[in-house]
Amino acid sequence: MTRLVERLPLLDLPAPTAASQRLCRELAALVDGRASTASHERALYARDMWPKALMWTRAGYTALPPDVIVWPETVEQVAAVTRKACELGVPLIPYGAGSGVCGGTIPLRGGIVMDVKRLSRIKSVDPEALEADVEAGMLGEIFERRLNRQGLSTGHFPSSMYCSTVGGWIAARGAGQASNRYGKIEDMTASVTAVDGRGEVVVTPRRPVPGWDLTQLLIGSEGALGTICSARMHLVRTPEARVFAGFKFRGIEEGTEAIRNIFQAGVRPAVVRLYDPFDTLLVGKGHEAKPAGKKGLLRAAFDEKVLVRLERLGSLTAIGQPIGLNRAADLLRECLLVLLFEGPADLVELEAEEATRVCLAAGGEDRGPDPARTWLEKRYAVSYKQSRVFDSGAFVDTMEVAATWDKVTQVYHRVRQAVAPLAFVMCHFSHAYPEGCALYFTFAGAAGSLEQIEERYDAIWRAGLAAARSAGATATHHHGVGVSKLNALKGQLGDGMRLIQALKATFDPKGILNPGKLGV
Amino acid sequence: MTRLVERLPLLDLPAPTAASQRLCRELAALVDGRASTASHERALYARDMWPKALMWTRAGYTALPPDVIVWPETVEQVAAVTRKACELGVPLIPYGAGSGVCGGTIPLRGGIVMDVKRLSRIKSVDPEALEADVEAGMLGEIFERRLNRQGLSTGHFPSSMYCSTVGGWIAARGAGQASNRYGKIEDMTASVTAVDGRGEVVVTPRRPVPGWDLTQLLIGSEGALGTICSARMHLVRTPEARVFAGFKFRGIEEGTEAIRNIFQAGVRPAVVRLYDPFDTLLVGKGHEAKPAGKKGLLRAAFDEKVLVRLERLGSLTAIGQPIGLNRAADLLRECLLVLLFEGPADLVELEAEEATRVCLAAGGEDRGPDPARTWLEKRYAVSYKQSRVFDSGAFVDTMEVAATWDKVTQVYHRVRQAVAPLAFVMCHFSHAYPEGCALYFTFAGAAGSLEQIEERYDAIWRAGLAAARSAGATATHHHGVGVSKLNALKGQLGDGMRLIQALKATFDPKGILNPGKLGV
Repeated sequence: MTRLVERLPLLDLPAPTAASQRLCRELAALVDGRASTASHERALYARDMWPKALMWTRAGYTALPPDVIVWPETVEQVAAVTRKACELGVPLIPYGAGSGVCGGTIPLRGGIVMDVKRLSRIKSVDPEALEADVEAGMLGEIFERRLNRQGLSTGHFPSSMYCSTVGGWIAARGAGQASNRYGKIEDMTASVTAVDGRGEVVVTPRRPVPGWDLTQLLIGSEGALGTICSARMHLVRTPEARVFAGFKFRGIEEGTEAIRNIFQAGVRPAVVRLYDPFDTLLVGKGHEAKPAGKKGLLRAAFDEKVLVRLERLGSLTAIGQPIGLNRAADLLRECLLVLLFEGPADLVELEAEEATRVCLAAGGEDRGPDPARTWLEKRYAVSYKQSRVFDSGAFVDTMEVAATWDKVTQVYHRVRQAVAPLAFVMCHFSHAYPEGCALYFTFAGAAGSLEQIEERYDAIWRAGLAAARSAGATATHHHGVGVSKLNALKGQLGDGMRLIQALKATFDPKGILNPGKLGV
Repeated sequence: MTRLVERLPLLDLPAPTAASQRLCRELAALVDGRASTASHERALYARDMWPKALMWTRAGYTALPPDVIVWPETVEQVAAVTRKACELGVPLIPYGAGSGVCGGTIPLRGGIVMDVKRLSRIKSVDPEALEADVEAGMLGEIFERRLNRQGLSTGHFPSSMYCSTVGGWIAARGAGQASNRYGKIEDMTASVTAVDGRGEVVVTPRRPVPGWDLTQLLIGSEGALGTICSARMHLVRTPEARVFAGFKFRGIEEGTEAIRNIFQAGVRPAVVRLYDPFDTLLVGKGHEAKPAGKKGLLRAAFDEKVLVRLERLGSLTAIGQPIGLNRAADLLRECLLVLLFEGPADLVELEAEEATRVCLAAGGEDRGPDPARTWLEKRYAVSYKQSRVFDSGAFVDTMEVAATWDKVTQVYHRVRQAVAPLAFVMCHFSHAYPEGCALYFTFAGAAGSLEQIEERYDAIWRAGLAAARSAGATATHHHGVGVSKLNALKGQLGDGMRLIQALKATFDPKGILNPGKLGV
């Protein structure tokens, strides 16, 4: 993966070429002057929240930056910019809020980054059909807050809620924390308006479609087929009531069995999170008072949330030799499951009762509503804390895959085993379906030089994804493909890659849209 | 539409050519001898349940028949047949149980019809992940019955349950009567194994997919991209309990409002059917004793189920001048809503209570469980009775479209108005979602000669679809496109057609797969 992305000194970027400056002027004329070749902007738009790019930033490096950044404000401006890029054969990378963690927006071959955050209007809200037509640059939290005023909600709550856009959700095929009840973004998107690689506007027909479903081609397309400009989104009503529940299980086998039985009985909690034993320890201590001193590695890890903890762990050499920490975690068994039910008051009460029965039957111990309440309070905290970990010289990343119930625990054990020599690893199980669920692994490590860190980081990803795939998991759940999962994409699609290439050739005949991504 | 499909005398089919006989021998060698050019088989495989083909049969005509029929038994045989067809450039039309009502399997350009009903094994059932790997030729009712033995169910109950296959469900993007709770076939299909137009086997990755969703390209592809050979299907557990409910409303506005509020509150009955006033009369009388005599048109219509009734109506000249009958129906107002809840006993009780509250609040009058019970008993009756109508010289057809709640009643009124001069028309509302529902229109008419009937029939479809589309409906809900909706497909997809053409060129570079369908 290293070779895929070029690395340059951050503070010594080459000055814009005459050609870039000319391109910038031409683009500026199309977008009311909002185009730039300034070095600080080029450096900013050279990355998203891909952890490797964060490591580089800390070490004074950057991925290859774009040559020009533009900020269109309308679909017509997006189309005009695209036609210009197509005419010149210059790469064009759509950009939302830059919260992607797989490097999906990194301009592998330079070119134009097109920030669509100015396309941020809610064009219409239909409370009767529970739908909104919203532009791609709308930030999640703002969208949600505006809908809430009308008693409506997106139903989509990624942990990046404050720093991700509707267009980004769709481009990366995202899922929110309440996907268990309301679905992933592909279930929520009725229709997409996009500008393809020729600068033409495509409006996909809504379901039920005649023949096949073109909306599903733009969902997950990561800017490589078209720039998503707006979408018709299904909404939900803000829930009348919420019920919180928490259970302790003797192991992940019991816990996942409980989740399976809840979903296969037709009960749909909005939120389901089963923490593995070490994650359970961290979460369990999350709302207790901080200990006075730090005695020993594990204790040091227990006094706050996961990533803040890892920030401190990072300063410890132990995380550079994670075997010991992983072995310590192996001694733990107890797992915490948090559940949140949303909907009409009496229905959610009964759903919670039903789930409680299932959990007790699976050997769970009722821990009351507090763990789920605590989780809800901190639901958006993680995205803000990630970069602080890197400041300390450690690194952290997450890998989300999914598997059917018959394979879930084997995926868990094999990934832990494969990554154990390389990083400290923990996991939670969430985004449940009747047929299976997602596994969300967190890796934390440290190493000496940037080169050593990169090598370690790449080895973790190779080992983690290979173990997940060999145990029967998908390559991704909701973070998209970007650069970190490009090889896994090719492995999972196999001969399907030629179909992607055909789509690419049709949507984007000159290959200007986010080139190198999705394997095309 | 007439011109799209050629019509020949049924009993005077041209004898197989020497080329067809040679092709038949070559194909027979690939499929253990199971290939035929016999006239009776060619005539049988020249049609499905497309009403116009039924009219033709009655009048002694047929659509252009295939030249050869083959019955492969394995994926390898499907691939071998396809490679041969590709090599020779001969059309190849996959065929399941022939229950399609839009003419999707009619071999517009002759060639080979490939009946996949011998691919009918359940390859595996995974009760833990609630999934089965099943071959495409498996008949719905047999599949369901075998699953039931293990406490499992497809959750998919089209009225064609006894005469449709899993492959046909997927190829036509179907929906069953319980789609309200369990989803349409696109929600139930985890992965598809198909043979593309080059004879290569494609296995689509299951959700959550990296990048875009290739399974969604084969769902609804009506044999034009590949022959579906098997699929991994999500299953449900057979429900622990069922609750039946029925309500009368003063009009369709109140009734659809009630359905909307039920679904937007997060309550999910398995079955939801709101009958328009005339359909309500027919349904309401469905389980009462037959009247002794037939006094007047309406009374004659009331003593049994819809289609059996229309069979008798067909003999009356009134149905040839439907204005009067439609005006009589205009005087009616009362609408019946039937609901069926399935799931864990206490949950469905509460869901039914919640729905009852909503229905009463919308002005509904509780009619107890009987209407829903009666519906359940007769749930598969319609598909068997359709052809009897044609025997009587009348014709009947159904048109299913979908709309968001803000447009549902306007679609209803506009379609009725547009079709009223041409056919007797009634409608029920079913397949509900939080954002809208499907409208299922039944048209019944009569005319003199075959030419007059065809002209009337085509005019009904043109008027009905145009009215539906102009009022904001989709062109289809779950019957597929076939030949009856081909123009509407093009209208709805617009520029999207070039994407379909690109997919076609990739999956089927020689254009041999069901040529002329889906506009490619």
